[in-house]
Amino acid sequence: MSRSCCGIEDAPLAPGDVARLERLAELARALCDPTRLAILQMIAANREPLCVCHLTDRLPVSQPTVSHHLRILREAGLVVTERRGTWAYYEATELGRAALHALSHLMLEPATR
Amino acid sequence: MSRSCCGIEDAPLAPGDVARLERLAELARALCDPTRLAILQMIAANREPLCVCHLTDRLPVSQPTVSHHLRILREAGLVVTERRGTWAYYEATELGRAALHALSHLMLEPATR
Repeated sequence: MSRSCCGIEDAPLAPGDVARLERLAELARALCDPTRLAILQMIAANREPLCVCHLTDRLPVSQPTVSHHLRILREAGLVVTERRGTWAYYEATELGRAALHALSHLMLEPATR
Repeated sequence: MSRSCCGIEDAPLAPGDVARLERLAELARALCDPTRLAILQMIAANREPLCVCHLTDRLPVSQPTVSHHLRILREAGLVVTERRGTWAYYEATELGRAALHALSHLMLEPATR
């Protein structure tokens, strides 16, 4: 507690609030890279699970970099994967589609009061 | 272009797409820290512009850290500020409120297909 503009003392954040904000920040962290967003967008745009080779084909980054981004997307629950022979296929989860939709929708908001 | 699972060659991402994804990633980056989210949440929860002293009172971080986060939120267009005498007051923009709402809403989505 410290001196404030009006003398009112504020209670610190509750532990439940802290845990919730940490989960939200984790989600935002999974979305905070343009290459990762491009990968999520390509996967979500496909009706069928998308083969990893179609990602590496379209992006100006190496295959290990694509794999790194896919791991982060998978750990955040934004995509799921299955292996078919030589190739891994990726599909967006409901959370992944919703996250992409929400973020895209925000771009329509004016940055004013 | 490289060998793919089906032999189909994919076109690279369009420059317009790249610019859009960079802006989305920038927005996600402004939201990817729990302390920054806590600050945005406190500001957005207040009907009136909120004095910076009420932020430093409630958070277990130093005043310069709070200032650092406020600068990032301001630069991303999520909050606006005005000075009244000794204190700076902060208000959430429409974009800031929408971003917080969108992110909170995502927590209700199941991380399944």
